[in-house]
Amino acid sequence: MTALANERVAFFNGQIVPESQVVIPFRDSGFMSGDAGFDTTRTFNQRIFKLDEHLARFMRTLRYLRIEPHMDLATMKAITIDVFERNRHLLGPHEDFWVSQRWSRGGDKWAGDKGTTPTMIIECSPLPYASRAALFRDGIDVTVPSIRRTPPDSMSPRAKTHNYLNLILADQEVKARDPNGWAVLLDHNGNLTEGLGSNFFIVSNGALVTPKANFVLPGISRETVIDLARAEGIEIVEADIDLFDAYNADEAFLTSTSLCICPVRRVNGAAVAEQRIPGPVTQKLIDAYARLVDCDFVAQYLHHLPG
Amino acid sequence: MTALANERVAFFNGQIVPESQVVIPFRDSGFMSGDAGFDTTRTFNQRIFKLDEHLARFMRTLRYLRIEPHMDLATMKAITIDVFERNRHLLGPHEDFWVSQRWSRGGDKWAGDKGTTPTMIIECSPLPYASRAALFRDGIDVTVPSIRRTPPDSMSPRAKTHNYLNLILADQEVKARDPNGWAVLLDHNGNLTEGLGSNFFIVSNGALVTPKANFVLPGISRETVIDLARAEGIEIVEADIDLFDAYNADEAFLTSTSLCICPVRRVNGAAVAEQRIPGPVTQKLIDAYARLVDCDFVAQYLHHLPG
Amino acid sequence: MTALANERVAFFNGQIVPESQVVIPFRDSGFMSGDAGFDTTRTFNQRIFKLDEHLARFMRTLRYLRIEPHMDLATMKAITIDVFERNRHLLGPHEDFWVSQRWSRGGDKWAGDKGTTPTMIIECSPLPYASRAALFRDGIDVTVPSIRRTPPDSMSPRAKTHNYLNLILADQEVKARDPNGWAVLLDHNGNLTEGLGSNFFIVSNGALVTPKANFVLPGISRETVIDLARAEGIEIVEADIDLFDAYNADEAFLTSTSLCICPVRRVNGAAVAEQRIPGPVTQKLIDAYARLVDCDFVAQYLHHLPG
Amino acid sequence: MTALANERVAFFNGQIVPESQVVIPFRDSGFMSGDAGFDTTRTFNQRIFKLDEHLARFMRTLRYLRIEPHMDLATMKAITIDVFERNRHLLGPHEDFWVSQRWSRGGDKWAGDKGTTPTMIIECSPLPYASRAALFRDGIDVTVPSIRRTPPDSMSPRAKTHNYLNLILADQEVKARDPNGWAVLLDHNGNLTEGLGSNFFIVSNGALVTPKANFVLPGISRETVIDLARAEGIEIVEADIDLFDAYNADEAFLTSTSLCICPVRRVNGAAVAEQRIPGPVTQKLIDAYARLVDCDFVAQYLHHLPG
Amino acid sequence: MTALANERVAFFNGQIVPESQVVIPFRDSGFMSGDAGFDTTRTFNQRIFKLDEHLARFMRTLRYLRIEPHMDLATMKAITIDVFERNRHLLGPHEDFWVSQRWSRGGDKWAGDKGTTPTMIIECSPLPYASRAALFRDGIDVTVPSIRRTPPDSMSPRAKTHNYLNLILADQEVKARDPNGWAVLLDHNGNLTEGLGSNFFIVSNGALVTPKANFVLPGISRETVIDLARAEGIEIVEADIDLFDAYNADEAFLTSTSLCICPVRRVNGAAVAEQRIPGPVTQKLIDAYARLVDCDFVAQYLHHLPG
Amino acid sequence: MTALANERVAFFNGQIVPESQVVIPFRDSGFMSGDAGFDTTRTFNQRIFKLDEHLARFMRTLRYLRIEPHMDLATMKAITIDVFERNRHLLGPHEDFWVSQRWSRGGDKWAGDKGTTPTMIIECSPLPYASRAALFRDGIDVTVPSIRRTPPDSMSPRAKTHNYLNLILADQEVKARDPNGWAVLLDHNGNLTEGLGSNFFIVSNGALVTPKANFVLPGISRETVIDLARAEGIEIVEADIDLFDAYNADEAFLTSTSLCICPVRRVNGAAVAEQRIPGPVTQKLIDAYARLVDCDFVAQYLHHLPG
Repeated sequence: MTALANERVAFFNGQIVPESQVVIPFRDSGFMSGDAGFDTTRTFNQRIFKLDEHLARFMRTLRYLRIEPHMDLATMKAITIDVFERNRHLLGPHEDFWVSQRWSRGGDKWAGDKGTTPTMIIECSPLPYASRAALFRDGIDVTVPSIRRTPPDSMSPRAKTHNYLNLILADQEVKARDPNGWAVLLDHNGNLTEGLGSNFFIVSNGALVTPKANFVLPGISRETVIDLARAEGIEIVEADIDLFDAYNADEAFLTSTSLCICPVRRVNGAAVAEQRIPGPVTQKLIDAYARLVDCDFVAQYLHHLPG
Repeated sequence: MTALANERVAFFNGQIVPESQVVIPFRDSGFMSGDAGFDTTRTFNQRIFKLDEHLARFMRTLRYLRIEPHMDLATMKAITIDVFERNRHLLGPHEDFWVSQRWSRGGDKWAGDKGTTPTMIIECSPLPYASRAALFRDGIDVTVPSIRRTPPDSMSPRAKTHNYLNLILADQEVKARDPNGWAVLLDHNGNLTEGLGSNFFIVSNGALVTPKANFVLPGISRETVIDLARAEGIEIVEADIDLFDAYNADEAFLTSTSLCICPVRRVNGAAVAEQRIPGPVTQKLIDAYARLVDCDFVAQYLHHLPG
Repeated sequence: MTALANERVAFFNGQIVPESQVVIPFRDSGFMSGDAGFDTTRTFNQRIFKLDEHLARFMRTLRYLRIEPHMDLATMKAITIDVFERNRHLLGPHEDFWVSQRWSRGGDKWAGDKGTTPTMIIECSPLPYASRAALFRDGIDVTVPSIRRTPPDSMSPRAKTHNYLNLILADQEVKARDPNGWAVLLDHNGNLTEGLGSNFFIVSNGALVTPKANFVLPGISRETVIDLARAEGIEIVEADIDLFDAYNADEAFLTSTSLCICPVRRVNGAAVAEQRIPGPVTQKLIDAYARLVDCDFVAQYLHHLPG
Repeated sequence: MTALANERVAFFNGQIVPESQVVIPFRDSGFMSGDAGFDTTRTFNQRIFKLDEHLARFMRTLRYLRIEPHMDLATMKAITIDVFERNRHLLGPHEDFWVSQRWSRGGDKWAGDKGTTPTMIIECSPLPYASRAALFRDGIDVTVPSIRRTPPDSMSPRAKTHNYLNLILADQEVKARDPNGWAVLLDHNGNLTEGLGSNFFIVSNGALVTPKANFVLPGISRETVIDLARAEGIEIVEADIDLFDAYNADEAFLTSTSLCICPVRRVNGAAVAEQRIPGPVTQKLIDAYARLVDCDFVAQYLHHLPG
Repeated sequence: MTALANERVAFFNGQIVPESQVVIPFRDSGFMSGDAGFDTTRTFNQRIFKLDEHLARFMRTLRYLRIEPHMDLATMKAITIDVFERNRHLLGPHEDFWVSQRWSRGGDKWAGDKGTTPTMIIECSPLPYASRAALFRDGIDVTVPSIRRTPPDSMSPRAKTHNYLNLILADQEVKARDPNGWAVLLDHNGNLTEGLGSNFFIVSNGALVTPKANFVLPGISRETVIDLARAEGIEIVEADIDLFDAYNADEAFLTSTSLCICPVRRVNGAAVAEQRIPGPVTQKLIDAYARLVDCDFVAQYLHHLPG
Repeated sequence: MTALANERVAFFNGQIVPESQVVIPFRDSGFMSGDAGFDTTRTFNQRIFKLDEHLARFMRTLRYLRIEPHMDLATMKAITIDVFERNRHLLGPHEDFWVSQRWSRGGDKWAGDKGTTPTMIIECSPLPYASRAALFRDGIDVTVPSIRRTPPDSMSPRAKTHNYLNLILADQEVKARDPNGWAVLLDHNGNLTEGLGSNFFIVSNGALVTPKANFVLPGISRETVIDLARAEGIEIVEADIDLFDAYNADEAFLTSTSLCICPVRRVNGAAVAEQRIPGPVTQKLIDAYARLVDCDFVAQYLHHLPG
C-alpha cells in the first residue's frame, strides 16, 4: 500500500497503514452505534505527554464498555510511540500532535454478531491551532446550553466514548447564537460539569475551584493543573459550581488536552471580574504548565493567528 | 468495482457499490462521535413496509441533529427501492430484508471541519431469523436493568441516532445474567420506556397499554399495532406503565420493525398472568398484523428454529 | 393633587391619582419581597378584553398568596373600567392599553407587621408597539436558556406574582447573546413551559400543540387561541413538548396579552420548517383572533415599525 | 424636606431624606418584579458588625443579577456609616439597628426600559426585639413545610434578592398551624437548607453540623459561628442534614443577622434531645458570640419580653 | 380454644379462631419486614361492599410482592363472608365492620427461609366512628407534610402493603402540630397524591378533579365516586393537582373505605372557597353514595359524636 | 411456661420466655405497618461485639420513628447480655449468634389506638453459616436492580426499621435471575448505596472507597472497617460511587454484621480486576478484622460448606 505524499500513517488492526486506508466497514458497531472508546494525549515539543496516565484511563473506559482490549498495555504504548515517530517528520516547527487510541467493539450487533475482535486504531492528528488561536488572545466565551449533561445512571460521563451527541447538541445550541461560543453544560442538579472535551475552573478569592469528578471526565490536564496549583501554593477545591459561582468568578479557564489552559472571558455573556485575560492566577498556572511541558503552548497557538 | 459473488450492494455517497466498499473514513464524525441518524423499515414477502412513514421519521431525526439531508424525499425513496430491488435476488423463500437509510454528518469535528456534506448510506440486511426464532416459540424474558433511559433534556429518545451506548450498556447488564434476556429500561420517573429498538405493550383487563411517546421512540410498528387494535375493537391506552403494571399484566409483548409483535413470557423473572404464549389478545393482534402485511412473520421466524 | 399634562391616572389605595403619585413606601412587602399578585388584560380598539376572566384569575393568584383582596369583584371591575375611561383620551388612533390590577400584601414583614391592608393599584399603560413591531415582521427567535422554570413545589408557575427573577435571569441569559431573542424555559422534566408572560404553541402535521397547564401560567390568550382553533376545526392538543418537537415544528408562535399571536421564526437558531412567517395555520388563527377582537393587531404593531 | 419628629432618615438615590420620602415609583422593576438585591448587617452596642463582609456579599448578589452598582465600595461603606450615624440618636439603651443596602434595577421592564440607573437605598431599622424575645426564652419551634427551597438552576438561593415568595409561602404554611413556628425548608434532595433569613445548625455528639453552602445563603452569622466554634475547639462539619439528623440532634439553633444565635426547641414537634434551652454547646457559642460583639444580645432580647 | 365473651373470631391459617389467638411468630417476615399485602372493604348496613373488586385488587398486590396466595379467589370470598357472618351479631344498630384479608410471606428471611406458605388472616374490625365523627361535622383539616410519597421506582404506591412507615411519618409530622390534622402527601414532582388510606378530590368550577392513579392507590371508594359523578352528570378529571389547585378549590373531600366521602375544611390552614361543609357538589355525591350503599353513613358517623 | 428442649429464650415485654411464646397480636402496628425499629449485633467467639454502639444506633432509629423506648440504655444492655447468656449453651463450637433488639410501636393505629407501650423483644438467632459459606469461597455476585433505594425525604435509609419491602423487592429482582446474586441498589442520583443489611466497598488504586453515609445505613461493620483501614495505613474515602467506579474496581467487598467482610467477585456480571478472591487489600482487612474480634470468621463460615 502506498501513502500520498506527506500522508500520515496510523496503526489499524495490526498494521501500520496510510490514514486514507483506515476505513471502517459501515456495519462495525463503532459506526452503527458509536460503540467505541478512545483516549487522546498530545505531544509538546514533539514529546508525548503523560502517555501512561492516558492509557490507564483508556483501559477504564474499555472496562466500563466491556470491550476486551486484545492487547496489553506495553504493546499499546510501544505502538503509540511508533506511530508518533513515523509521523513526526510531518510536524512543522511550531506544531504538535494529538495522539489517540480508538477501539470499537467491532462486529455487527444487529446481526447478532457480538464482535469477537475490536477494531483498533492508533493515530495522530495535528492540533487545531488556527481555529483556536483567537481563544488564547481574547479568552473563551462560555455559554451554558439548555441541554443537561447525560446523567451517570444513563451513561457515565467519565467514560471517553464515541457517543458524543449530547455534547454536540449542546455545542450546536451555543454555536447557533455565537459561532465562537464554547458550551459548558449543567448536570441535572444545576452544577456546571464540562464542555466538549474540556474541564472548567474558576478562581475565587485566590482559590481554584473545579467541579467534582462525579459528573465530568476526570481530565489528565485537569489533574495536571491541580498538581501544579498545589505546587504553586494555590488552594484548590473540588466542589459543586453553579451559575452563581460562575458569574462571581474572579477568573475562569478551561483545560483540555489540546488547550492545556485557556482563559475564559465571559460566562453567559457576563465578563469575569478580572479584566485582564488571562488573569494573574491563570497566568501563573499557564506559566507553570509551560515549564512542566517545556513548551510555550500559548505562543504556539498565537503563532497561528491569522496575519 | 466488482462485488463478491452474492454480495449485497448499497447506495454510498451517490453510487451503488458492493457493501464491502461501503467503508467510513475513521475521521468521519459518524465514526468518531456516533454523529449520525438512521431509520429502518423491513420488507414483508419482499415488499417494503410503510416506507413513507419511515422516511418522514428519518427527516425528523436529521432535523433534530441539524444534519442537512442534501437529498429530497422522492430521491431518497427511489434509491431505497432501487437498492432493495438490486438485492432482492439474494433473499431465500422465507426471508425478508431490513432496509435502512444512514446519514452521518461527515467531516472531522475535532479538526474544526463542520462536514459540509453528509456521508449517505442506503442499505439492506437480512433479518436475524435464527437468533430470534426461539423468542417466538418461548416468549421474551424482559429484564429491567439498573440503567435509566437517557432523559429528553440530555438527548431526545425520539431521535433514531447512532449513539446507542445507553441501550447497549443496558443490554450488557441484562445479557450478563441471562443471554436470552431483553432489556427494557425505566425512565427517571420510574416508568417503562423501551428496549433496544423495540416498544413495550401490556394487556390489562382486555385493554392494550403502551408507554406514552415522550420517552420512547414512536415506533412505526407501535403505531401499526395501535391502529390494528382500534380496528379490532381492542381498547388502547397510551399511559405511564411502571413495574406494578408490568407485574400485573395479563399479557405483554414487544414490537419492532423486525419482530413486528413478539410475546413476552416474563418481566424480571415474574411470568405474565396468561400462561399461553402468546395470549389471546396478543394472538389476535399477531393475526391482524400478518393479514395487514400479508406475511405470516411468526411462521417465517419459527421456520428458522434450529432443527 | 395635580397631574402633569397628559399624565395617566391610576387607582391607588382608594383614590384616583396621577401616576406619578402612585409610589410605594420602600418597606411595603411588595417592594421588599416582590410579595404581590397582579393580572393584566389589554384593550382592543379601546374596549377591554375578557376582563371577567382576568379578574377571576387575579383572585386565584391572591388566594394562592393568601392576600385578602379587601374589595369585591364588582367594585374591582367598575374601578378598572373607570381607570381605563379616564385615560382613554391619551390613546392615539392605532393604540391600545394594558390594564392591570396589582395588590401587594403591604406592611413590613421584617418588622413583624403582617400587613392588614393590601396596597392596591389599578392602572393602564401603553402597549410596547415600537419595541415589538419587528417581531411581527420577522418572527420571534426563541432561545431556551439553561435556567429551568421554578418548579411548582417551590412556587407555582400558575400564580401571576411580582417575583419575576426566574424569568428575568432567563431573559438575561438569552439577551446577552441575542438582544432580540425571546427566552422560553424548560421545566425540570425537560419540557418547554413558557416565556416571560407568554405561552408557546407549535403546529405539527396540521395540529396545534401547547404545553399542559401544569408548569405554565394558563394564559387568557392561550385559552382564546384554543377556543379559536376549535372553532376553526384545527386539532388542538395539550401535551408535553420537548426540544425534539420544537425543532420539528412546522410552525410555532407565542401568545400573550399584548402579542395576542406572534409567529416564531427560529428555536435555538433552528428555523421552523415553514419558511413563510407567519405560516398558514398561524395566519388562520391570527385572522380569527383579529375578527374576535375586531382589531387588526398585527397591522397595529407593524404601524409602529421605524420608518 | 422635613422629617417627622423622631423619623429615621435614609439614603435614597443620592440624597439623605426622611424615610417617609423613600417611596418607589410603582413601575420600578424592584416593585414590579422584586427585581432587586440587598444585604443587611446589624449593629451591636451601636457599632456596625462586619460591614465589609456584608458589602462584599452584596456585590456578589448584584453581579449575579447583572445590576450595575453605579457606586464604588468605599462610597457605599461611607454612606452606610453616615446613615447609621444620623439615626443613632433614635436608639434606646438596649437597642440596635439593622443596616441595609437595597439596589433595584430600576426602570420599567415591561415598557422595554432597561433601567440605566438602579434605585439605591441605604437604610436602618430597629431590630424586632419584642416579637422575637420569647424565642430566646423558650427556643424556636422549627417546622419543615411541604414547599421546597427554589433550586439553584431556577434561581440561586445564594443571591439575596427581593424575590422572597418561596420563603413567604413556606412561612405561611407553618404559621397557619403554629403562629410561633419557624419554617426551615428542604431542598429537592431532601436536605435541610435554611429558613427565612436564617441558617440552621445542629449539635451531634459534640460536633456542630450545618448544611453545605450550595443550597443556602452563606450567612455572615453562619460564618461567624463557624469561626467561633473553631476557636472554641468545637468540631464543625458542613454536610447534608436530613430529617433523620434533625430528629436526632442533641441541640439545634438558628443563626441570622438579627438573632445571632437562637436555640431551637423542637423540629416538627419533636423536642431536641437536650432538655435545657439553650444546651451546653449552644450556650458556649452564644457566650463566645456575645464576647466577640461585646454585646449580650440574649439579654437585649429578653429585656423586651412583655412584662 | 375458647373466645372471650363478645370476642370477634377470624380466619387464621386455615381455621376460624378467636382474635386473641391470631398471633404472629415474631420471626414471620410479616412482622420482621412488614412483608405482607392486605386489602380492606367495609359493610354497609351489614352487607359487604364490592368484595369482588377488593379481592381482585388484593391479588394484584400479592402478585407485585410475589407472594403466592395458596388459595383461590372463590375460597377467599367464601371465607371472608363466613368470617363476617360469624361476627355480625357483635355489631350494634348503627355499626358496620371493616373486613380485611392479610397475607404475609411468612418464613424467616434472615435465616434464609423463603417462606413456602404465607401467613393468612381474614378478619373484621369495628369502624372508628367515635374518633372520626367530628370530621363529618366540621370537615377535615388537610395538612401537607414535608415528607414525599415513596416514588414508584422505590416501591409502588399502588400496592397495599404492611410497609406503612412513609405514611406514618407523614402523619406524625402533621399530628404533632394539629392532632386533628390529616396528612396528604406530595410526590417528588410536587403533585398531591394521597393520605393514609385515603384519596383526595377537589371541586373546581363544578368539575371534580382527583390525582391520576400513577402515584396513588386506586381506591375502590375513589372509583365509586368517579362512577357516581358520571351518573350525576358531574364532569370528572384525573389530573395532576398541586398546591395552587388545592388552595383554589371550591370544595374538597377525601374518600376511603371507611369514610366513603368526608368533606375537607382547610388545606394547609387555608379554607376552601365554599363556606358550607359539605359544599353542594360534595353533598350531591354523599347523597348518591348513600343511596348506592343504602346506608346514611354520615348519620352513622354523627350518631357517635360525643353527647 | 416451658420451652422445647434446646429452644432459645427471648425477652418479650418484660419477661424471659421461650421463643415460641414470642408472638405478636396481629393488630400490633409492628405487624400491621412494619411500624418497628430494630438493631442487630453479633457475637464473636461468644462475646457480644460493640453492643454500646449498636444500642446507641437503635436509640437513633427509635427517636426518628418517635417510638418511646420505655426502657433505659443500661437496662437494655443488661437484658441483652442476659438473653445471650441464657442461650449461649445452644451454640456449637464454630458458631455465634445474631443478638437483636426489636421495638414495635404497639397498639392498633387503625382503631385510633396510639400504642402507649411498645412491644419489646430482645432475642438471639444463629448466624446463617450454611447458606452464606459459599460466598466466602467464591466471592459475591453483586447485581444492581432497577429499583432505587427509598429516598431520604420519603423515609430515611439511615433508620433501621421493619419496613424492608424496598430491599426485598430489589432482592427478588436479582434472585429471579441469579439465586446467588446479592442486590446493591442505586439511589436516585445514580450512586450505589447498600444491599440488604450490607455496605459496599471498592478498592481503587490502593485506596478504599465506600458510599457516603447519606443514603445508606451507617453500618457498625462499615465503621469498623474504616477504623481498621486507617490503622493499617490504607487510604479511605467516603464518596459517591457509580457504576463506572464499580466496574473499574480492583477489588470490592460487602460488610455487614454477619458477614463482617465478604469479597465481591462480580458486579453486574463484570469481574473485578483482581482475579484472586479475596484480593490483597481485602485480605489485609479481613485479617485485621479477625484479629480485632479474635475470631477467624472466614474459617467459621467455610467450616459450614457442604462436605
